[in-house]
Amino acid sequence: MVGYAFMGAAHSHAWRTAPRFFDLPLAIEMTALAGRDAERVAAAADKLGWNSVETDWRRLVERDDIDLIDICVPGNLHAEIAIAALEAGKHVLCEKPLANSVEEAERMTAVAEAAKAQGAVAMCGFSYRRTPALSLAKRLVDEGRLGEIRHIRAQYLQDWLTDENAPLTWRLDKSKSGSGSLGDIGAHIIDAAQWIAGSNVTGVSAILETFVKERPVGGDFVGLGGHGGADGPKGPVTVDDAAVFTARFDNRAVGVFEATRFALGRKNAMRVELNGSKASLAFDFEDMNSLWFYDSADGPNSGFRKIQATEPEHPYTGNWWPVGHGLGYEHAFTHQVVDLANAIAAGEQPTPSFADALQVQRVLAAVEASAADDSRWTAV
Amino acid sequence: MVGYAFMGAAHSHAWRTAPRFFDLPLAIEMTALAGRDAERVAAAADKLGWNSVETDWRRLVERDDIDLIDICVPGNLHAEIAIAALEAGKHVLCEKPLANSVEEAERMTAVAEAAKAQGAVAMCGFSYRRTPALSLAKRLVDEGRLGEIRHIRAQYLQDWLTDENAPLTWRLDKSKSGSGSLGDIGAHIIDAAQWIAGSNVTGVSAILETFVKERPVGGDFVGLGGHGGADGPKGPVTVDDAAVFTARFDNRAVGVFEATRFALGRKNAMRVELNGSKASLAFDFEDMNSLWFYDSADGPNSGFRKIQATEPEHPYTGNWWPVGHGLGYEHAFTHQVVDLANAIAAGEQPTPSFADALQVQRVLAAVEASAADDSRWTAV
Amino acid sequence: MVGYAFMGAAHSHAWRTAPRFFDLPLAIEMTALAGRDAERVAAAADKLGWNSVETDWRRLVERDDIDLIDICVPGNLHAEIAIAALEAGKHVLCEKPLANSVEEAERMTAVAEAAKAQGAVAMCGFSYRRTPALSLAKRLVDEGRLGEIRHIRAQYLQDWLTDENAPLTWRLDKSKSGSGSLGDIGAHIIDAAQWIAGSNVTGVSAILETFVKERPVGGDFVGLGGHGGADGPKGPVTVDDAAVFTARFDNRAVGVFEATRFALGRKNAMRVELNGSKASLAFDFEDMNSLWFYDSADGPNSGFRKIQATEPEHPYTGNWWPVGHGLGYEHAFTHQVVDLANAIAAGEQPTPSFADALQVQRVLAAVEASAADDSRWTAV
Amino acid sequence: MVGYAFMGAAHSHAWRTAPRFFDLPLAIEMTALAGRDAERVAAAADKLGWNSVETDWRRLVERDDIDLIDICVPGNLHAEIAIAALEAGKHVLCEKPLANSVEEAERMTAVAEAAKAQGAVAMCGFSYRRTPALSLAKRLVDEGRLGEIRHIRAQYLQDWLTDENAPLTWRLDKSKSGSGSLGDIGAHIIDAAQWIAGSNVTGVSAILETFVKERPVGGDFVGLGGHGGADGPKGPVTVDDAAVFTARFDNRAVGVFEATRFALGRKNAMRVELNGSKASLAFDFEDMNSLWFYDSADGPNSGFRKIQATEPEHPYTGNWWPVGHGLGYEHAFTHQVVDLANAIAAGEQPTPSFADALQVQRVLAAVEASAADDSRWTAV
Repeated sequence: MVGYAFMGAAHSHAWRTAPRFFDLPLAIEMTALAGRDAERVAAAADKLGWNSVETDWRRLVERDDIDLIDICVPGNLHAEIAIAALEAGKHVLCEKPLANSVEEAERMTAVAEAAKAQGAVAMCGFSYRRTPALSLAKRLVDEGRLGEIRHIRAQYLQDWLTDENAPLTWRLDKSKSGSGSLGDIGAHIIDAAQWIAGSNVTGVSAILETFVKERPVGGDFVGLGGHGGADGPKGPVTVDDAAVFTARFDNRAVGVFEATRFALGRKNAMRVELNGSKASLAFDFEDMNSLWFYDSADGPNSGFRKIQATEPEHPYTGNWWPVGHGLGYEHAFTHQVVDLANAIAAGEQPTPSFADALQVQRVLAAVEASAADDSRWTAV
Repeated sequence: MVGYAFMGAAHSHAWRTAPRFFDLPLAIEMTALAGRDAERVAAAADKLGWNSVETDWRRLVERDDIDLIDICVPGNLHAEIAIAALEAGKHVLCEKPLANSVEEAERMTAVAEAAKAQGAVAMCGFSYRRTPALSLAKRLVDEGRLGEIRHIRAQYLQDWLTDENAPLTWRLDKSKSGSGSLGDIGAHIIDAAQWIAGSNVTGVSAILETFVKERPVGGDFVGLGGHGGADGPKGPVTVDDAAVFTARFDNRAVGVFEATRFALGRKNAMRVELNGSKASLAFDFEDMNSLWFYDSADGPNSGFRKIQATEPEHPYTGNWWPVGHGLGYEHAFTHQVVDLANAIAAGEQPTPSFADALQVQRVLAAVEASAADDSRWTAV
Repeated sequence: MVGYAFMGAAHSHAWRTAPRFFDLPLAIEMTALAGRDAERVAAAADKLGWNSVETDWRRLVERDDIDLIDICVPGNLHAEIAIAALEAGKHVLCEKPLANSVEEAERMTAVAEAAKAQGAVAMCGFSYRRTPALSLAKRLVDEGRLGEIRHIRAQYLQDWLTDENAPLTWRLDKSKSGSGSLGDIGAHIIDAAQWIAGSNVTGVSAILETFVKERPVGGDFVGLGGHGGADGPKGPVTVDDAAVFTARFDNRAVGVFEATRFALGRKNAMRVELNGSKASLAFDFEDMNSLWFYDSADGPNSGFRKIQATEPEHPYTGNWWPVGHGLGYEHAFTHQVVDLANAIAAGEQPTPSFADALQVQRVLAAVEASAADDSRWTAV
Repeated sequence: MVGYAFMGAAHSHAWRTAPRFFDLPLAIEMTALAGRDAERVAAAADKLGWNSVETDWRRLVERDDIDLIDICVPGNLHAEIAIAALEAGKHVLCEKPLANSVEEAERMTAVAEAAKAQGAVAMCGFSYRRTPALSLAKRLVDEGRLGEIRHIRAQYLQDWLTDENAPLTWRLDKSKSGSGSLGDIGAHIIDAAQWIAGSNVTGVSAILETFVKERPVGGDFVGLGGHGGADGPKGPVTVDDAAVFTARFDNRAVGVFEATRFALGRKNAMRVELNGSKASLAFDFEDMNSLWFYDSADGPNSGFRKIQATEPEHPYTGNWWPVGHGLGYEHAFTHQVVDLANAIAAGEQPTPSFADALQVQRVLAAVEASAADDSRWTAV
């Protein structure tokens, strides 16, 4: 694994936990952790449970005892690492967004497709897909329960930048993160919407906004945000604070998307709602174990049902606890590892593939292009 | 009063009820009801409690025993009636949207301003403003509790057109209604957003969509929609089924709006949320007696509070029942009458004025222009 | 009508409004209002819309132009008025609880049954039955949707006495009100539970508690409670502040009841939940237009559905507004008048009858007896 | 660790995970797993990650390489194992309820107190205490935010026995489980209520009910319940299906408790609400990352706040994910291990102690005694 921050901890937990709750066709060894700072990577490996360390990710690519490379670093490094790993015949799990540009994502996808012929598979870490309630949403759509889909509305609302003195982290530096709320959280709802609806975005009209143009350099990090010094030096915020856009899908649905880190009081409100001709469904990550489902077949006594997606029949949950004993954020990462291991063993392409992630990347690029040109309608 | 359908019943109830719960400075007489069909207007007057009837609204304008004309007919008739009434020195309460075009609305506003000098006042019936929880939202913003407003998201979601055989009513005929979901329900959220935020929309980028192009002529009406005959003749739907747009406000906030009658399961989800630098608030008419308020001053134990807007200290509610004994949809109309009567007696301009409603009309027009030109950014 | 306080206003509104929204078989005349204080009753009649006044309720009984007497005074006066009215051949609508003792309630019921033979009907005002969502709950149970009912839990939680200086009103004086939270609000949930379940309470084990033993005399009334002077004279609270009890029903269900005015933050949380072998339902008056319904027939994707009880097919709501346009507290009183008028015209017994209310009275008495004897199990 | 079923999996996960997210003062070794069936215990040890196995728990007590014994077996075995372990100088973590009788619990508590002097500590696994939102509730009460507590209502509602053919598992066999819903889930809400309120139950009046007297022997287990064969042999259910009781606390609060496995649609609704003179709080495990808090200090704009108990300042959550990224059921077990390890290292008594659990056991016994004697008031 490369990287050991927020995502590194989540992924490590997943590798450690998956075989304890699921019967996997492969044995998992947490072989090596890579990071540039020798001391810090050693401490992280000890904490997170990795057997060895490297200070150069290239060493992971070279080592014969490593079959898969898990990339948990900022987006500007994804392409180089993923391509090297795939070309060396390693399987790759790469955090989202796939890359910081469509061009990089296209190259990665091309390499992934070539590597697949050699037996190495690539997967992009849109982890929310494996939240049981969202997997259930996908299942209901695939079963045709919704009929023709007319509306898709998706929001990802956070508030950790509301404080004007929250510090300038790498997530606010375009050279590392590629974009702000758009790529970080907007990418999740674009992927979720397209995946659940089984339909791609064909065009967008967008606004990107940076409410706070400068922020303190340094400062204490707490969670994603933290508290910077109001009096110290400041640096420029080079990414968007909020991204909002309308969209059309190839199934004729009309979409509305909003991603922001300034929705005070909304902590991790990753929301998706689909309205079909026969049924509707709605999800909010702040109540992540529930899926709301409205079925017009229930007649005048229809109403949005709060399905607790914790039944043995629901995706993934039968391997955990009894009904109503909710899962948490990190479980989706464990399920991602489970599905990846199963796909590798079966010689199948895990999803989302790099091609799926490339489609998301194209939407991100269209949003940026539209926003840069006065919300002009931009085809994907 | 002119008109006696859905709005006519609501307005009649308001005129009848206002003096029973509020101390008004004026006596209210429900003098006359006008409608074209003599038999039906007589039956309606009897049912709704009007003392006389006319089959031509012009008679109301002529009668000396009438001081105020309440206009509850489709939008294509608003301008003519309102202008005649104001020019005759009558006060006017006109249903929303003010008109079917900016040009009409401008003329009406000009006449209203002239009439005001003569002592006749004009008000537009954006009744939701008087829902206590929304009035409370406005009060909190006016008190500065939200700080700088960054996001405004407003939705008006209904589902009564989801059935492809719902009948072709006047609300789907552009010549009468002017537009579809946009003017009917979109106008409400545009007005509410601008009013609560104390800020106007400066530009939009919009999509209008008509999902079902033809519908049965005739059919049974039930509520707003109903069930048409699937096999009978059909006529064209000439208005939008859904309107979605992004917006910017003159306070720098970014807005997202969505109005639709195809959000299956959402019955009357008129929703407004504002995120500020200090606090946020959210409202959903489906739970109309509550206002959700998040105050960052509460520190780490902040959370959206469900304020039951039924306290004696809250707008309007002290005149009704004890706390927690919720009000209904029609109460806002009663409050509208109360405020109008008070304004007339005090010689003040009631709100929303025709000028306020004209601003909404300009946003509606900008949305239509943008949608007609591939979502081009359109200034208001 | 006798009485013109909180209930008087609600009843007046109902008599005034019922014929405007429902087709009634009888014409309603609001003939006379009675109250002891000539000046205040005259003002109230003017405000509430009554055509004449009397300072002695006995005059209402004597007047030939009065067909029905509506009793909205404290419980200690119910028996005398209702009996006199029924014996004079008037129909009676009597506020709940029916009386302040089982003995009174028995006498009233006997007179009501005799009067019925003479064509005068009696009804007790358990108005919550006519809240559409609760009427829908009853319908679902009657249709057999719940199967065998195992649990009934009912709460009526208010908080207007939490303040130790809330004033000593008549509701806290046993000689007038009979009991405290038990008869005032507990009676409502006992009636609702028995009515919806179609089953009577057979025994109880109870606690009554008075948290605050003395309260200020006088003080300002606001809503039900208000603010008394902390330094002025105090008088004894002679009723319960809270009543909690377990119960058994004749359908074998186990019940839990709780009524209190000290549940800080719960304003009017009148809640009923039934769990059956096939389905469950839950209601909370704080969201009065919704009924939550869980149907196990929905399989693994079951979940509590939030039914917005505002459809044309739902009880009463077809006469009001389109779906999702919620009703308020007072609508149940209007529906009560509608059903009473229909029953009178049809020569049928309206429900709840005095006999139904007597059954509630017996539960109240059993609760008091149990509480007075150390929670001893007490048969009803 | 002894036992490897539902609780065994949860505890194993906790031991494995605690050092990865928390800095512990002790190293954790998962040394040995004990169970009677050699083959099954070996498979479980492999799956759950234990280094060795024993087929007799007494071997764990004898082994020198074991410092702590974690007891995850049915209640009838707790006393023997815990006493032997403590007497051998091992620390003990024992699942709840502590025992199947007060007598056993008293003996265990006496041994635990003696062992403490020898440096071995004992803790009972009321894991819900470590759910962050409930820990936050406790903190708010300890800070005096609630004022004088008047009402405590606690429910634990499940529905896995609603199906009359759910199989007869050990949880329905009194000789193993001691009691039914009472000890299994009622114990949790008794502990939570007493702990959060900082006050003990002093007396109860109770009903225990067994709705379904016989159930299929065998059958498939799924989660806690499952599907038995309707046609096969049946055996007697010897425990309660539901337990309801009223209670008084030594702080004068009035309590209502309800534990059942027949509340159809309620999956794991472990709920606690406290109403104080200054504030109220409410929790429902079905939305386990939230705490609802009503603070009357907020004045007329008070309302129950939905606090997402995921802030860095909240108990435990700073060691996991950013705000709004919810935790799941098993995290409480991890926190339990963290606090136990810290207590052992510091030479302090972890909570809940066996004495705390004995108090719960006394309440359970009083409930059973009251129910057996017609709900007679029974002092604890």
